[in-house]
Amino acid sequence: MRTSVLSRALLGLIAAEPMSGYGLARLFERTLARAWPARHPQIYPALAELEQQGLLRVSETGPRRRKTYAVTANGVAEVQRWLRDTAPDRTVRNETILRLFMLWLLESREAVAFFDDEIESHRQRLVGFEQTLADDERQRREHGTAQGGIAFCASLALEWGIRYEREYIEWATQARDRIADGAKAWDNARERRLG
Amino acid sequence: MRTSVLSRALLGLIAAEPMSGYGLARLFERTLARAWPARHPQIYPALAELEQQGLLRVSETGPRRRKTYAVTANGVAEVQRWLRDTAPDRTVRNETILRLFMLWLLESREAVAFFDDEIESHRQRLVGFEQTLADDERQRREHGTAQGGIAFCASLALEWGIRYEREYIEWATQARDRIADGAKAWDNARERRLG
Repeated sequence: MRTSVLSRALLGLIAAEPMSGYGLARLFERTLARAWPARHPQIYPALAELEQQGLLRVSETGPRRRKTYAVTANGVAEVQRWLRDTAPDRTVRNETILRLFMLWLLESREAVAFFDDEIESHRQRLVGFEQTLADDERQRREHGTAQGGIAFCASLALEWGIRYEREYIEWATQARDRIADGAKAWDNARERRLG
Repeated sequence: MRTSVLSRALLGLIAAEPMSGYGLARLFERTLARAWPARHPQIYPALAELEQQGLLRVSETGPRRRKTYAVTANGVAEVQRWLRDTAPDRTVRNETILRLFMLWLLESREAVAFFDDEIESHRQRLVGFEQTLADDERQRREHGTAQGGIAFCASLALEWGIRYEREYIEWATQARDRIADGAKAWDNARERRLG
């Protein structure tokens, strides 16, 4: 059975709560996009295939024929098997860090601008994560909290996101300042190499 | 002209120093693998294509016909254009964090084991980075250092790698301990949901 990472993720999310393709797309957009990108055009065919494989079933059909899916026992078993029997693919692709190895080809003021863009972009992400954290904490105060379940797992992931962004911004700010302070040495090294 | 991220990276690395496909593959393996995965079967055809496009030229042919490539002026301009005119793709794929959203489907002891594996795997990465840092610092003491050039850029990337791994291990250790301490609540929440 060909089952992608995305399909397993959809099964796992629906295991927590029956959901429509629209609801899943919003969940990816709001919460999961920093872990795994997924958009409507990928989600709908994956759901149809999972239904055909007997891993999901349609639990409700709403207005405009919107289908809500629930997981089947086989679906739960499939995600559990994936989590238990396979190691996560820990391959990293970070185009920014890759570009950093080429950054000496630009002038120091361009390298400083590169880091300014990074800092700004990651500050925006951090603000988004901190907003989500504040919303979650308000919800927990109102409804209480449990030390398990998907909400707890999501809160651990959010904590990682916040730690990551804070650390990244701190590193990028230091790197930026070091380039700005040593601008002359940077430009000299560049000219020596490029002639 | 179709030029991939990998091709641009190859151009940028060769701009610092003429290199063979073998040398580039080793460089990716030892230094760049945590930013961008690339293996021999991808590197050799990319180099041949860049030569055909006039962005690289063969600067030397060694024993067993090993070619050393040097960048051309057009090649340097192509990397600079890429760095200047396009924003990096900041899409993140982190299968571990994605899996975390499904982790409540496993028993608490399995969730603890998941984090133990993560901690062990990232400790190994950190040890590798710290070894590279120690080697670099020895080289700097022996040969002096400059505030620019590719060595400086590589040292910034290495610093990020070390910060990332330390932060990750700290987070994963806290998460592991919280799950271990609240194991009963975790397993109860799971049973309520899965029945």
